Amino acid sequence: MAEQLPDLIEEVILASNDEDNEFMPSIVAAKDENELALLLESLPLEQRLDVWNNIQPHKKLDVLIAMRGDPRETIINETDEEDWDNLFLDIEAEDLLELAESLPDQLVERAYAAMDKLQKQYFFEASQFTEEQTGHWLNPDYLVLPITARIRDSNRLLRREVGEHIDTLFLVNRAGMFSAAVKLNKLFGVPEHIPLVDLAEESINTLNANDDCQKTSLEVQNSGYSSLPVLDDTGKLLGRLDVRTASEIVNESYERSMMASAGMDEDEDLFSSVKKSAKGRALWLGINLLTAFLASAFIGMFEATLQQVVALAVLMPVVASMGGIAGSQTLTLIIRGLALGQVTSANVKALLIKELKVGGLNGVIWAAIIGLVSFLWFGDHLLGIVIGIAILFNIVAAAFAGVFVPVILEKLKIDPALSGAVILTTVTDIVGFVAFLGLGTLFLIN
Amino acid sequence: MAEQLPDLIEEVILASNDEDNEFMPSIVAAKDENELALLLESLPLEQRLDVWNNIQPHKKLDVLIAMRGDPRETIINETDEEDWDNLFLDIEAEDLLELAESLPDQLVERAYAAMDKLQKQYFFEASQFTEEQTGHWLNPDYLVLPITARIRDSNRLLRREVGEHIDTLFLVNRAGMFSAAVKLNKLFGVPEHIPLVDLAEESINTLNANDDCQKTSLEVQNSGYSSLPVLDDTGKLLGRLDVRTASEIVNESYERSMMASAGMDEDEDLFSSVKKSAKGRALWLGINLLTAFLASAFIGMFEATLQQVVALAVLMPVVASMGGIAGSQTLTLIIRGLALGQVTSANVKALLIKELKVGGLNGVIWAAIIGLVSFLWFGDHLLGIVIGIAILFNIVAAAFAGVFVPVILEKLKIDPALSGAVILTTVTDIVGFVAFLGLGTLFLIN
Repeated sequence: MAEQLPDLIEEVILASNDEDNEFMPSIVAAKDENELALLLESLPLEQRLDVWNNIQPHKKLDVLIAMRGDPRETIINETDEEDWDNLFLDIEAEDLLELAESLPDQLVERAYAAMDKLQKQYFFEASQFTEEQTGHWLNPDYLVLPITARIRDSNRLLRREVGEHIDTLFLVNRAGMFSAAVKLNKLFGVPEHIPLVDLAEESINTLNANDDCQKTSLEVQNSGYSSLPVLDDTGKLLGRLDVRTASEIVNESYERSMMASAGMDEDEDLFSSVKKSAKGRALWLGINLLTAFLASAFIGMFEATLQQVVALAVLMPVVASMGGIAGSQTLTLIIRGLALGQVTSANVKALLIKELKVGGLNGVIWAAIIGLVSFLWFGDHLLGIVIGIAILFNIVAAAFAGVFVPVILEKLKIDPALSGAVILTTVTDIVGFVAFLGLGTLFLIN
Repeated sequence: MAEQLPDLIEEVILASNDEDNEFMPSIVAAKDENELALLLESLPLEQRLDVWNNIQPHKKLDVLIAMRGDPRETIINETDEEDWDNLFLDIEAEDLLELAESLPDQLVERAYAAMDKLQKQYFFEASQFTEEQTGHWLNPDYLVLPITARIRDSNRLLRREVGEHIDTLFLVNRAGMFSAAVKLNKLFGVPEHIPLVDLAEESINTLNANDDCQKTSLEVQNSGYSSLPVLDDTGKLLGRLDVRTASEIVNESYERSMMASAGMDEDEDLFSSVKKSAKGRALWLGINLLTAFLASAFIGMFEATLQQVVALAVLMPVVASMGGIAGSQTLTLIIRGLALGQVTSANVKALLIKELKVGGLNGVIWAAIIGLVSFLWFGDHLLGIVIGIAILFNIVAAAFAGVFVPVILEKLKIDPALSGAVILTTVTDIVGFVAFLGLGTLFLIN
């Protein structure tokens, strides 16, 4: 069983306090690249480099590849010129595709120069696709035979080393078009003269290299196969998308949504430098400041009212935050639906009606509760009525915005996970303040 | 290539408007269980049942299993008594383990009764583990031979049908202890007398059935194998965790965090009934209301100040929201770190120091900007100074809370993704309001 990461971190931090560092090499030696990548990301810069220097040279490239972007760059920045030749010794196309975004151009060129002709060609082919396209993530290592091949041919082919997550053999026609797939385990004990096509899978999904890689990755995860064939528009077999790569793509997209909701990206480093970190978060704080000042400007329109009825100032946050919470519930549901392809123009109207009904029901209930509490607190029944109406109004508006904000952002090709929440709370803040203070001005000012 | 889900939804909604429903059977027939599950979840109840009734009987159980909890229950509730016998015709242990939470007890018993002896035993064994444990998700279908077996034995074994995601054969000793694993593709073309153990993998991770299934699922995804062997505490081989199940577990845990951030669970139905949906969200709104009233109570302490300096009421949301955003950035980073096992007692102090520095730097910058804008807006330099200090104070407090709130929640075994944000914004609201209005009372009241 693998040692738990928290224990490992503690052990390393203890070992690094020891001046001789005598235990570090043995601690590090037993770990695989994924454990080491997670470990490095968990350490402050000094200890991170300490561990890095103790990793066996032949593992270093794989560790670097397994790391997230920002922490990876802290290590790249500290790597000496001469060390790169060692790191790039056995680099393959898919390694460089992963690393390229973190490397300065001149190092990308050096890595490219270090690859053999075949890897150069794979790199070139994958570079024809964007990172969002399935073709970028092709595994070029697959088993293929002509559609006319027999068991004796597959027996010969299978004597060579077979790569990871290969559980099928692909059959192509003379033009290289994908024709069928045969599961490897069906080939055991079959007589040599049997045509492979007789053993082909009845149906296997094929993927289009131009398609969105998140969608195709989910298809691979759900397929029951360890990889699915990837074709170009004409049906030509280009390679395969394996379940390991697919899982990385899916996990990264979930992580991206999670981090995006706080205006960060998934490469954010736990221990990035203070300056870099502050800079990275400043944009998000700045956008939020604009929306906060906007809300303040709306409040400012009611200065005279606030002066006369201070209770309004006291209760303002209640109106805004109930709208914000109700809206974020609808928003989260819709964002998930959009990510799964479940929210479309065909059902958005039915969804809106349902969310408005939910908002109406919750609005009435919470309006009554909040109105009552406010009346009891300030002893003013008109204040209770005013806040009740404002709450109802804001929760319904929140349902409306919770459906439309992400749907419109998606249409505009802006990630709703990134900016949905900011826009939504701006709407609910402003609607809440204006409804509450406006009604207050109408009913509470003599 | 699979048809895109949005197109499919549109097609189905169009077809369901047609009274004869003549196209529905053919639309539905070509889809696999995952597509059908996503489709059903995307439809309002009436059309959902319409599609369900058109699904071929032999697919229905798999579709039900692939669905999320809440939408699945809407279908279960509409299924007639007599239909269950058909649905349960070929039910296996892992199906029932998936379905059990959605089924009333008496249907669980009926499904159990419909299984053969072997499946009953699998069900019993998995039920010994909680849903968080790896043992619950065991795939009992695996290839196993004694450690003394030779190629001729594996050839015989492999002539039978082999299940999904089996790329290795396990070797056990006489006591059933796991000894080694051999990759299937290494068995092609090897002479019959060779012992399998000679071809064994140098190292393959094994999983403990008691371990957290999210951690072990990530291990499977990263392993390069299609499944990993699962052992009990004594080393006895119990089964395997396959990459498809592992991906479902990982994806579900990401989805759970995402939905939890809005106080919902991952089973939430896009088209649940209004009453159920309103009820499900009420708790979260109620908790939020308590925290909002708490913040209001703190504001209420400064009523006299607010009456004299209305600008404070106007600018209150700016102070609160800047703290909330800065805090949520730290919070999100720490929650991800906790989920990955990267934040531990060994490095939390270093993390806190870094986040306080980032908060200090951002605090100074935004304090200056907001102070200046407020001065220009209201023409009061003291107001500018007061809001500046309050902002700095709140952003630093937010960094502090952003680290400690999730770490403490994790210690208390409360999911920080669920309640972290609510607690954090309560802290930043209250700190922000008290700092701002308190300083305002000191400096702005004559």
